[in-house]
Amino acid sequence: MLGVCYYPEHWPESWWAEDARRMKAMGIGFVRIGEFAWSRMEPQAGVFDWGWLDRALDVLHAAGLKVVLCTPTTAPPKWLVDAHPDILPVGPDGMVRGFGSRRHYTFSSATYLLESRRITEAIALRYGKHPGVAGWQTDNEYGCHDTVMSYGPEDLREFRQWLRRQYQSPDQLNEAWGNVFWSMEVQSFDQVSLPNLTVTEANPAAQLDFRRFQSSQVAAYDKMQVDILRAHSPGRFITHNMMGFFTEYDHWPLGEHLDFPSWDAYPVGFTERLPFSEEEHVRWAETAHPDISPFNHDLYRAIGKGRFWVMEQQPGPVNWAPWNPVPKPGMVRLWTWEALAHGAEVVSYFRWRQAPFAQEQMHAGLNLPGLHELSPGGKEARQVGEELARLGALPKSGQGDVALVYDYEAQWVLDIQPQGKDFRHGELCFRFYEALRRLGLDVDIVRPGASLKGYKLVVAPSLPIVSEAAERAFAAAEGVLMFGPRSGSKTRHYQIPGNLPPGPLQKQLGLRVIEVSSLRPGLSSKVTGAISGTATRWAEHLETGAKVLGKFADGKPAVVQNGQCFYLACWPDEKLLQGLIGRAAKAAKLKTLALPPHIRLRRRGDWVFAFNYGPKAWPLPKGAKPLLGSKTLKAQELAIWKAGPG
Amino acid sequence: MLGVCYYPEHWPESWWAEDARRMKAMGIGFVRIGEFAWSRMEPQAGVFDWGWLDRALDVLHAAGLKVVLCTPTTAPPKWLVDAHPDILPVGPDGMVRGFGSRRHYTFSSATYLLESRRITEAIALRYGKHPGVAGWQTDNEYGCHDTVMSYGPEDLREFRQWLRRQYQSPDQLNEAWGNVFWSMEVQSFDQVSLPNLTVTEANPAAQLDFRRFQSSQVAAYDKMQVDILRAHSPGRFITHNMMGFFTEYDHWPLGEHLDFPSWDAYPVGFTERLPFSEEEHVRWAETAHPDISPFNHDLYRAIGKGRFWVMEQQPGPVNWAPWNPVPKPGMVRLWTWEALAHGAEVVSYFRWRQAPFAQEQMHAGLNLPGLHELSPGGKEARQVGEELARLGALPKSGQGDVALVYDYEAQWVLDIQPQGKDFRHGELCFRFYEALRRLGLDVDIVRPGASLKGYKLVVAPSLPIVSEAAERAFAAAEGVLMFGPRSGSKTRHYQIPGNLPPGPLQKQLGLRVIEVSSLRPGLSSKVTGAISGTATRWAEHLETGAKVLGKFADGKPAVVQNGQCFYLACWPDEKLLQGLIGRAAKAAKLKTLALPPHIRLRRRGDWVFAFNYGPKAWPLPKGAKPLLGSKTLKAQELAIWKAGPG
Amino acid sequence: MLGVCYYPEHWPESWWAEDARRMKAMGIGFVRIGEFAWSRMEPQAGVFDWGWLDRALDVLHAAGLKVVLCTPTTAPPKWLVDAHPDILPVGPDGMVRGFGSRRHYTFSSATYLLESRRITEAIALRYGKHPGVAGWQTDNEYGCHDTVMSYGPEDLREFRQWLRRQYQSPDQLNEAWGNVFWSMEVQSFDQVSLPNLTVTEANPAAQLDFRRFQSSQVAAYDKMQVDILRAHSPGRFITHNMMGFFTEYDHWPLGEHLDFPSWDAYPVGFTERLPFSEEEHVRWAETAHPDISPFNHDLYRAIGKGRFWVMEQQPGPVNWAPWNPVPKPGMVRLWTWEALAHGAEVVSYFRWRQAPFAQEQMHAGLNLPGLHELSPGGKEARQVGEELARLGALPKSGQGDVALVYDYEAQWVLDIQPQGKDFRHGELCFRFYEALRRLGLDVDIVRPGASLKGYKLVVAPSLPIVSEAAERAFAAAEGVLMFGPRSGSKTRHYQIPGNLPPGPLQKQLGLRVIEVSSLRPGLSSKVTGAISGTATRWAEHLETGAKVLGKFADGKPAVVQNGQCFYLACWPDEKLLQGLIGRAAKAAKLKTLALPPHIRLRRRGDWVFAFNYGPKAWPLPKGAKPLLGSKTLKAQELAIWKAGPG
Repeated sequence: MLGVCYYPEHWPESWWAEDARRMKAMGIGFVRIGEFAWSRMEPQAGVFDWGWLDRALDVLHAAGLKVVLCTPTTAPPKWLVDAHPDILPVGPDGMVRGFGSRRHYTFSSATYLLESRRITEAIALRYGKHPGVAGWQTDNEYGCHDTVMSYGPEDLREFRQWLRRQYQSPDQLNEAWGNVFWSMEVQSFDQVSLPNLTVTEANPAAQLDFRRFQSSQVAAYDKMQVDILRAHSPGRFITHNMMGFFTEYDHWPLGEHLDFPSWDAYPVGFTERLPFSEEEHVRWAETAHPDISPFNHDLYRAIGKGRFWVMEQQPGPVNWAPWNPVPKPGMVRLWTWEALAHGAEVVSYFRWRQAPFAQEQMHAGLNLPGLHELSPGGKEARQVGEELARLGALPKSGQGDVALVYDYEAQWVLDIQPQGKDFRHGELCFRFYEALRRLGLDVDIVRPGASLKGYKLVVAPSLPIVSEAAERAFAAAEGVLMFGPRSGSKTRHYQIPGNLPPGPLQKQLGLRVIEVSSLRPGLSSKVTGAISGTATRWAEHLETGAKVLGKFADGKPAVVQNGQCFYLACWPDEKLLQGLIGRAAKAAKLKTLALPPHIRLRRRGDWVFAFNYGPKAWPLPKGAKPLLGSKTLKAQELAIWKAGPG
Repeated sequence: MLGVCYYPEHWPESWWAEDARRMKAMGIGFVRIGEFAWSRMEPQAGVFDWGWLDRALDVLHAAGLKVVLCTPTTAPPKWLVDAHPDILPVGPDGMVRGFGSRRHYTFSSATYLLESRRITEAIALRYGKHPGVAGWQTDNEYGCHDTVMSYGPEDLREFRQWLRRQYQSPDQLNEAWGNVFWSMEVQSFDQVSLPNLTVTEANPAAQLDFRRFQSSQVAAYDKMQVDILRAHSPGRFITHNMMGFFTEYDHWPLGEHLDFPSWDAYPVGFTERLPFSEEEHVRWAETAHPDISPFNHDLYRAIGKGRFWVMEQQPGPVNWAPWNPVPKPGMVRLWTWEALAHGAEVVSYFRWRQAPFAQEQMHAGLNLPGLHELSPGGKEARQVGEELARLGALPKSGQGDVALVYDYEAQWVLDIQPQGKDFRHGELCFRFYEALRRLGLDVDIVRPGASLKGYKLVVAPSLPIVSEAAERAFAAAEGVLMFGPRSGSKTRHYQIPGNLPPGPLQKQLGLRVIEVSSLRPGLSSKVTGAISGTATRWAEHLETGAKVLGKFADGKPAVVQNGQCFYLACWPDEKLLQGLIGRAAKAAKLKTLALPPHIRLRRRGDWVFAFNYGPKAWPLPKGAKPLLGSKTLKAQELAIWKAGPG
Repeated sequence: MLGVCYYPEHWPESWWAEDARRMKAMGIGFVRIGEFAWSRMEPQAGVFDWGWLDRALDVLHAAGLKVVLCTPTTAPPKWLVDAHPDILPVGPDGMVRGFGSRRHYTFSSATYLLESRRITEAIALRYGKHPGVAGWQTDNEYGCHDTVMSYGPEDLREFRQWLRRQYQSPDQLNEAWGNVFWSMEVQSFDQVSLPNLTVTEANPAAQLDFRRFQSSQVAAYDKMQVDILRAHSPGRFITHNMMGFFTEYDHWPLGEHLDFPSWDAYPVGFTERLPFSEEEHVRWAETAHPDISPFNHDLYRAIGKGRFWVMEQQPGPVNWAPWNPVPKPGMVRLWTWEALAHGAEVVSYFRWRQAPFAQEQMHAGLNLPGLHELSPGGKEARQVGEELARLGALPKSGQGDVALVYDYEAQWVLDIQPQGKDFRHGELCFRFYEALRRLGLDVDIVRPGASLKGYKLVVAPSLPIVSEAAERAFAAAEGVLMFGPRSGSKTRHYQIPGNLPPGPLQKQLGLRVIEVSSLRPGLSSKVTGAISGTATRWAEHLETGAKVLGKFADGKPAVVQNGQCFYLACWPDEKLLQGLIGRAAKAAKLKTLALPPHIRLRRRGDWVFAFNYGPKAWPLPKGAKPLLGSKTLKAQELAIWKAGPG
């Protein structure tokens, strides 16, 4: 199903009905509205103006559209901020971040919590039972523009409270953080300070706890809104639109209390931002890298326990990356189908019409700026609408054979002390994901500690903290396990495990790590043996009795296998990673198909989807009879066929 | 005529007479003094010490030198700043910028306005009718060190006042800025905040208005001084020394109330700062790029409606660029003659003698540091003095055939939302200018809206906002018109025009732009057709019925011609730009001469000047009989001859 | 002798005796303790807990170890900072630098001075006569994390006081600084402001004086502690552990009141930080550049008038560089021996055991994290212990033939106004040192003004300010003198000398500098003549009657010789520098031996040490009979033999 983001407050009221009619006509079923409209809902403190929103809802409903209504808390109005400047977040540099754009609040502001409750209740009471309202979105893109990590007095007060709950006494805090190290000990929780503006880096344990705290503030804030909406709007779903590759807060807990998560898919912008090589940046600039959207689809499907939406799908060029090219013709359609292939229930475009004013005026919409005229991307969306109508319901998406273990905390741990400047957790996870999908495999992303039952291959690219639950899940896994560098290298309190890394995994992996080396650009080590390639960025010095599959240039083990478990003791280049993944897949008895860099497959039920990110055509596998597309998959095209019984 | 900047307060009084004598002897006629001497004029609040300045003026006057006296407001003394810290500017980071160098004031400080009036009146009253005073310079280099854009409480108060005058009501402001977009609406002008320290970018319309406001503050401040000086110093000219490639304020309005503008020419330093390729940076490091000074000469001649001075001419190495090489022998002479060729009335060197102390001690002067001994640059200046004496008066400089439309606001618009990180308005204008001059053409720079009568070719490299006056001028133009990318892409209030870009130019150009693509480094599109080359950085997707002169790789139009009008829908490489300019020049029936990269021509009346930036010699055109120089123009040399009748 | 840094407060008390036993067993004689333990010594204001330290000292003493006890002032505890926030330093950006790591105090805080006295007296009184205490370390790494230069109100008050002492009157200050330049004059010392947060750069003379002031604050602070310790702890040595390549304060004065300086040797981390070429960075990443440690050994030996320790020797990978590789096997041993070869009395490793918690958990120790088990580096240290026991006492280290003149102030002068972005004083000194040692020479570093008697060759790579004492020492020198660019280019008050550079050296060198050119990357000048190569970064325009040994491409002199004195008028490439040093060495009648890039020699008495930084083996000189090592010096190996009588 398709959807769209719409801003009735941006357009003359006289346009609304025609907009709704044209949406419906092109196959759009859902319309998201309201997330930036607080100043229109409540122009002055306590003075509400619901009239326009009543009418907008009625018009959309009358046209047969289902509305996803948003709480408007992402952008508190000026009168509120002027009255309560304690709402504003404070940057790591100690400067207040002011009014004038959006997300100018800290989750720890006591005032803002009250005000958010107030406006959420007001909107829920008014529209909770409106027949046009199918569901809710809380706020908008929590954390966008680095707004999770605020460092103001409100944050400090709440952080101290949080620490009180985590640690029984200052002594336990001192012990957990190792505060004795530089006389950083506190005698009371009121002596704890924020981990910014220190002379040199703050205690990594303090940093990690501060991230956990701020992350939990996001979850608590969201839960607060969800509870209010559930109370006043029975039978409606509640979601929040998350972002791609966004790791500032832990998303798993939100998956617990939302009906499903949504995410905002801007594959071209993300491609520009990710730390690709220059060659990759240029190659994928106008199509996006073929694993950018899929990685996030698979992640959010996991967070939603099988359910997710794309709430904002890029419909053309955007405005916020350093460069913003027009996507190649066909890509808007391709991305939409790809989301569906990965299990999205709805793909909703951002936005119906390009706004000719304000910050995002260079962000494309389905319609040209200020006009009732489809943009190139809009025409592709219309085509998807027609195709969906033709094909009917899609099969269900089930559990796959391969699990990739992914965690937000892992990102934080390795951000806080990368030890080598280019050790990037997210990049490593992405490269593992890419390598799996280059073999034609579908990947389920799983939270550490979740059951690994049924998976033939489980890959943990780098999991520094292995919780007891995760340890149990790994021990109970039935398939092949593969761990990447730095797994098990930290305790919950950011300490090196007493038995050395990989800590709780030592027995299962049959090794311990006695030294680690971060390698500057230009420094590398050839890996030779059953698996070969090159180690860059990172190399570990193992003591192990396990089988050595690859050795560093100095003869030390680089890749080992202990029973069903593999361990990779370095940052791998493409060759090494492909070799390792291939071998593990073989050990797991998985069927693989080596794909060219621009082709990806994905199954949904018994349907197989193929996507060509270009520029070369690709012949479908023998025997594939396309439900959509043709036997030769051209650049920027997709095909669907039913999997054979074998 | 030559001039020099002199600081009697830096030297023993016993040196003044000898300095004056030596100036006069080498052909210097004008001496600028006083701009940094407030602490000497008024050592304590209200206690003036004019004695030294009286004597200095008398000495200079007695030697037959004409004095350009400055108001000393560029550097308020410490006692004043201590008494009134509200004078100090505030950076975009919210930090006060303190005492200890210069330009430590914001134009919006109410106190500083009063104090500036007071000292201006005092100096005007004392010296306004002194026979040695030929003219005045207001302040010094407005805006230097990023001091136009201050973000303090004084600025906020004045900005709100300015907005009140621009917009009748908060609603009109909200409408113009599109404040509904992210609930940024205000209910009163007192709710407006400054566009810095926002969580993400501030509204571009607010940013543009804030720039307009700060720019108008500069003009109003200058006008305040000019009015006082006119009242008390009849018959003297008034100028201000502006900078090269400085776009933080709009210079055109100052041209309205000054007698003429001056500018400070540091071609080698500017070459280091401009975004040239590494190859160009190295090639021009010791001569400057050959269009650096000319572009500014032509710009300031336009601002001065035909009149301008060079107030500070680089006389050797400077101190403020990342690297400061010694200019090649001959360049100080060449630059001086070049300024005269472009119409400068006076070329004044900065400074008479290198100061051996304080911030600029590594900045060369005409004399060696602390000595009565000409530096290498000083000797070249002396040679120009002799040559000028020999050649006598130069012919008048008149209107040319080619106009380049240039605007400060265009720079602001594209700075605020470049959409592609390397879309630089100034660079594009410079490349158009360079391409014109590589064809041997003289260029007049014109303000948008100015009459284009008499021009055979009018080039607007990129003019996002086309005012009604500009629209009329373009419509009334008699020659060939050429517009570059993003022309007509914004309304006055920083919105996309209702009919899409190029907005008011749509009819004249016969096209509309439906999408734009910014291209990262490495991404480009071949342009083929009657005009060919490569598009980099930027490409537009046109709908047009006009004649297509060049197509992008995907077949879409890249260069079109509609009657007498050309439109370029991309950022051109050198080949594409040269081809386009060549074709337009041909259409305009201009005589062109393809020059090597290091040679430039310029006419002044019937005199033709040729400049060789090196390193290869260049034979003068056939029949040229040098008034100065020889028939083979050697590296770092110039030649002058009279144009033939044809 | 070997030593180690130990933190009893980090480990269970039950481990202490075993730790002490194992230290002793591996040849460790000295144990440094206590520098980060204030929060354990005085958990609350005025409440001391000495029990644990009493017991720790007793355990170490009982094991036969000598203790170096530290004052704990490097890390004031939270209760103190909360009570007296004026202790905290302020960054150049005006932001307070807070609690949460270490070194969070400014030397100018009146409160902190009192508190430091108090804790120093307390610890000195308690342990001053403890038989286990062999000596003291004051504080820890003064200035680490850019903490010399604080810019707060405490600093301003003390700076004004310092200026009052330096200058009799505001007028003398104004004159010395050239404050007239931009109306920067003050009428009282209370008008002086700090040289940060100015609109553009502050007066370089003010900047230089502020650096001198802050440097003198460090020395005064240290002297305060030393005086207290001497009073209460007779017969014990006092040292401070300084850093490598650290120039924020002048170290020479500390050498005056300490018994000897120590320094903390992290050669791999320093290699990563120094401005080497990419090729050099990669080549030396796992061994360190072979002159990194030696340069500092020679410097600290000079500061200690022949005596110094390495207080912290890198024992494996560290945690604080952008990349932190594991050193090649053998390097920990090599570095240790190298320090001894250069005259170190003790080499003490940091640290006994890797801490599994807090900021430095990735910093290796002699033991694995949290374990009683030697790390790879620990095993190498044990080997050195055995070798030392075998070889017995080392001969004394005496004065050499070559002196390199090095000064902290020179660094400040060229930092403040580099004039070319890559003119780095430290790098130039390092390259001169490297070139000397590539010829097999031993180098003594000397303070400008120190006697140069006995040296055959004296090299001053760049000494902008030549004091009267230095002038006298140069005049009295008996050997060959060589000066690099910018020598003599400034007066004590940061002015250009009245007779132009090289100022006081003009007569001795027979030249003056009339212009200087800084050359951007890509810009260079071939130097040809008796000495040839390439000038990059910097070139001077000399007037000279001296003998020209090398000319720039434009024919101007690049290298000149005036009697026994050489002057280099540019930044040399390797070839030019080697040629120049070789010629000067020849003129000085020194025996040289051209070494490969990875080999270095060093004499101590009649012992010759050779070090191979790898990767190629090197045959020892003919006739060398190794006391340690073999005749073929393998990669990462060292050899010792006795010098022949010739």
